[in-house]
Amino acid sequence: MLDVCLLGTGGMMPLPYRWLTALMLRYNGSNILIDCGEGTQITLKKQGWSFKSIDVICFTHYHGDHISGLPGMLLTMGNSDRTEPITMIGPKGLERVVTGLRVIAPELPFEIKFIELTETTQTFDMCGLQIEAYKVKHNVLCYGYSIVVSRLGLFDVNKAKSQDIPVKLWSHLQKGEVTVDGDITYTPDMVMGPARKGIKLAYCTDTRPTQLITDSVREADLFICEGMDGEDEDQPPAIENKHMTMKEAAQLAKEARVTELWLTHYSPAVTYPSEYLKNLVKVFPKTIMGTDRMTTTLKFED
Amino acid sequence: MLDVCLLGTGGMMPLPYRWLTALMLRYNGSNILIDCGEGTQITLKKQGWSFKSIDVICFTHYHGDHISGLPGMLLTMGNSDRTEPITMIGPKGLERVVTGLRVIAPELPFEIKFIELTETTQTFDMCGLQIEAYKVKHNVLCYGYSIVVSRLGLFDVNKAKSQDIPVKLWSHLQKGEVTVDGDITYTPDMVMGPARKGIKLAYCTDTRPTQLITDSVREADLFICEGMDGEDEDQPPAIENKHMTMKEAAQLAKEARVTELWLTHYSPAVTYPSEYLKNLVKVFPKTIMGTDRMTTTLKFED
Repeated sequence: MLDVCLLGTGGMMPLPYRWLTALMLRYNGSNILIDCGEGTQITLKKQGWSFKSIDVICFTHYHGDHISGLPGMLLTMGNSDRTEPITMIGPKGLERVVTGLRVIAPELPFEIKFIELTETTQTFDMCGLQIEAYKVKHNVLCYGYSIVVSRLGLFDVNKAKSQDIPVKLWSHLQKGEVTVDGDITYTPDMVMGPARKGIKLAYCTDTRPTQLITDSVREADLFICEGMDGEDEDQPPAIENKHMTMKEAAQLAKEARVTELWLTHYSPAVTYPSEYLKNLVKVFPKTIMGTDRMTTTLKFED
Repeated sequence: MLDVCLLGTGGMMPLPYRWLTALMLRYNGSNILIDCGEGTQITLKKQGWSFKSIDVICFTHYHGDHISGLPGMLLTMGNSDRTEPITMIGPKGLERVVTGLRVIAPELPFEIKFIELTETTQTFDMCGLQIEAYKVKHNVLCYGYSIVVSRLGLFDVNKAKSQDIPVKLWSHLQKGEVTVDGDITYTPDMVMGPARKGIKLAYCTDTRPTQLITDSVREADLFICEGMDGEDEDQPPAIENKHMTMKEAAQLAKEARVTELWLTHYSPAVTYPSEYLKNLVKVFPKTIMGTDRMTTTLKFED
């Protein structure tokens, strides 16, 4: 089960009625934050989820609205007596940017580990999940992220029997342990059926639509995507500034055959995002207008 | 007339129900901000005052809760097409700290002028006001600020007549202009009575009480002071961390004979500051528990 909270839904600047876009995930005791604009620690506190125990922070890019809340967040985490190291993932320049911001948070009681993205796509196994980063197309280097929870296949008793695998080893193999008995090495795939559908969450802001995004978010259970502007005619500023319109996000969701789309990262000029929903559901019926602290739990299929 | 808005009243970290302590002043078309923690731009927007036209930002010190909102504020000011230069005043290190934070706001359409405080007390004439900085006693270099609006004396017709000052020069001298007529230089003091009481606003956070603070805030019309903790017994953490308790602030207000005291910069542990008011008014009757966006206009006496 993956808990998902869209902490904010604004782009560019925080507003009295809309926090900046950031995403918090909880899985099996681990916590992952994607982006941290000004005020993210406040909306997180409002949500009541713990900031002390954030294990990983992923950054899409270093425009202020995606990272300006970091020094305050680190100070608050430090004040909560956190001592475990934290890992940060982001485009090239991560350590330089965070070091700059830490001019006001020079002393922290925990270590920061930096992973700078260098490839077009990169995958990391962390916290029992796969974190997949993929390059998007903004006016600065920027990445989207997919979070995948894999699911093993079912134990196949016939498969185990047909290969004469000793019964005493079954439970070890079922847990994914490679096991040696006598001279023979047994591997989990010898007793397991094919991997089952897992959980996939995709997050993408600050980009024009690209084929790589479609491929990377394909068949996500939940796709959280920017809809910077609701108007599609006359090249809105969103497009000029290398963002996506809501309609483009809906088209992307359709092409990638995701289950559900949540829109976010609204322009400050968009006061009532839901005004645009009527046209969007014609493109992709399961479009939801994200709101601050919209929350869900993604579960394995039965 | 000096408009005063206490934008926030929190210390250490922003909370869902309390913005960080910052002060905004408007005088005669000019705008001065003191401190800029995370979220200051949001509470300012809520107040409806302009951030585009801030002329001066004064910093007490560089702990995160007093400056973490600066990069976001600068970006938002930049997005509003501001081009006029802005002046920043703060303790030594100002340019280094702001440069560090600007790693996420490297390009701004306006210039920043830095004034780094080097003396125990320093006064600046700006925006038609005097900005007086005075060193306080925190665990890092920190300053308080007093803002003074001077008021000329009244035109003294008998004084002018007794010195045979030509009537045609009276209006110039009354406006404060030094005027030459024939071989004689006339100065405004030749026609004006003694300066009248002006307006004084004093602001002080993050310090232990000191004699210099008492002297610097003396007879202020409004004294805005931290009251980090409401408890005075058993050395509360406020004192250990070089802050003031509410009672100490009230004592300071009494000694300095200010007209009114607003408390601010409450510890996150203080959920209901007003619970402490009963004991404080015994020390200084005109104690007011500051709340976010508490606003007043200070006027000249009639």
